[in-house]
Amino acid sequence: MRIGILGAGVVGSSVAELAEEYGHTVTAIADSKSATTDANGIDVEAVLERKKNDGVVGDEPSDSAIDASYDALIEATPITIGDAEPAFSHVKGALERDCHVVLGNKGPMAQRYRDVRALEAESDGEIRFEATVGGPMPVLSTISDLGPDHVTRVRGVFNSLANFILSRMTAEGLGYEHVLAEAQDLGVAEVDPTFDVEGTDAALTCSILANVLTQSEREFTIDDVHVEGIKEIPGSALDLAKDDGRTVRLIGEISEDDVRVAPRLVSENSALAVSGARTVIQLETEHAGQTHVTGAGATGHEIATAILVDVTRLEAP
Amino acid sequence: MRIGILGAGVVGSSVAELAEEYGHTVTAIADSKSATTDANGIDVEAVLERKKNDGVVGDEPSDSAIDASYDALIEATPITIGDAEPAFSHVKGALERDCHVVLGNKGPMAQRYRDVRALEAESDGEIRFEATVGGPMPVLSTISDLGPDHVTRVRGVFNSLANFILSRMTAEGLGYEHVLAEAQDLGVAEVDPTFDVEGTDAALTCSILANVLTQSEREFTIDDVHVEGIKEIPGSALDLAKDDGRTVRLIGEISEDDVRVAPRLVSENSALAVSGARTVIQLETEHAGQTHVTGAGATGHEIATAILVDVTRLEAP
Repeated sequence: MRIGILGAGVVGSSVAELAEEYGHTVTAIADSKSATTDANGIDVEAVLERKKNDGVVGDEPSDSAIDASYDALIEATPITIGDAEPAFSHVKGALERDCHVVLGNKGPMAQRYRDVRALEAESDGEIRFEATVGGPMPVLSTISDLGPDHVTRVRGVFNSLANFILSRMTAEGLGYEHVLAEAQDLGVAEVDPTFDVEGTDAALTCSILANVLTQSEREFTIDDVHVEGIKEIPGSALDLAKDDGRTVRLIGEISEDDVRVAPRLVSENSALAVSGARTVIQLETEHAGQTHVTGAGATGHEIATAILVDVTRLEAP
Repeated sequence: MRIGILGAGVVGSSVAELAEEYGHTVTAIADSKSATTDANGIDVEAVLERKKNDGVVGDEPSDSAIDASYDALIEATPITIGDAEPAFSHVKGALERDCHVVLGNKGPMAQRYRDVRALEAESDGEIRFEATVGGPMPVLSTISDLGPDHVTRVRGVFNSLANFILSRMTAEGLGYEHVLAEAQDLGVAEVDPTFDVEGTDAALTCSILANVLTQSEREFTIDDVHVEGIKEIPGSALDLAKDDGRTVRLIGEISEDDVRVAPRLVSENSALAVSGARTVIQLETEHAGQTHVTGAGATGHEIATAILVDVTRLEAP
């Protein structure tokens, strides 16, 4: 399949790098400033080299990638909160041209679910977004196999940085600021970790899951998620929990009554008590009990793999 | 879809019970002695009631179910070692009639993989067997999504009873015989637990996974799996492991060089160190890192759900 890639950060670059291995051809790639397009396939290696050295992916204007020739558009630009722009317009453009869209960006399905589904209904193209929920973990595919109707509750640790910080605070008895600085030194945390530690990233995941589970009966946006982050948790609370055989995790939960992200006490033996930069998603079903999927905090290659698997699914009859 | 069910034990009965909820009609059901068939749908409740009270599912001979009218045959008779009969003949009969087959029975894909695939190639029917690997856990679907070529290694705890016994031995410092008797009292273990504790059940799972991963390049049967069970593990070995921050689990492993089931030392913090009657499967991929899927020891309803999800997949275009 011929793919166009919007976004040349860690995820977009990894998609470009791995595309050939999954049998796909990259015909366009853009970052915020520039683009390269070639209907016969761009020279990925040269483009990524140039990105590294000069900070641009080509000589064309960024917009030319959207209008290029491809079967599927990969949306991997940075997440924005609110109207999910410009990602939403990228999705719209591709679907209106009857092209498929695969999302790496959580914004459109977390904040404009109905609008995207409406565009998809009018298009010969399809939209896929497995990578936006748990990265490489098979979450949406499992929900789709079980049937969303049969999934009664989803809980999970959706953000690996928040989990890394809470695990370290618990294990070492260290304070929040100290562990955060350590995470930044290790490259686990961005310079601005707000998005992760305030629960915004987990809330976006919850919103997507709520939309998928209710099958558009009701639309969820990030504003419908009750969010509480981990910055205010005192070390003493973690010590108290530990004495009681429990621990604190930033848990996202989607049930019939409520969509919520908050620090919660869980038993140390619970499947939700993963440690380090890990994530876990628990699916509770009517008849199939609980299934857990866990993964390591996803790197660019891992998210790219989830995206390319989605592209491959589109090719299937 | 109209389904015929062979086997009216815990799994077969659960499939019958839940079929309607997944939009399917049961047109035949058989145990080893009897059958009921009705092209318009049998009265499931009455049949299961009769099975409970009289030990039979109907007045017809057992074989009449195989010849009945259905779109998909569910094979849920007890596993046999060796030529996987009579399950293999059931699969053959259905595929030769161009019907689909969904397996609850591990035998055919663990022991006669190529024969089954050859029959499928000649048939308009398809074969599905997600329930035979980890029950309700999405393992085969994830391997298929990732592409078997991209999965470099699979390891896991495939048998929940063996894991229950090892966990209890470790946690309580009790001996094998003591914990086994306890498991039998709790109904977690069968009267004859040989199949589970000697590693045979896990070996069947390994053989299926090896066949799926090599995509028929080479055929695996249970004879190709190196198997060592848990009966000979002394309590002292578990204590020694514990002092070292490790624990012992019955691990199945499928890698390029080897297919093996054996007690192995794993770190207490490892994702493979699940405790109690749980199972876990670790998929190691070239680019997507490690993904783990865990589940509780599967009940009849859980395995039935996996089977019915497979049936539903068959309906999709």
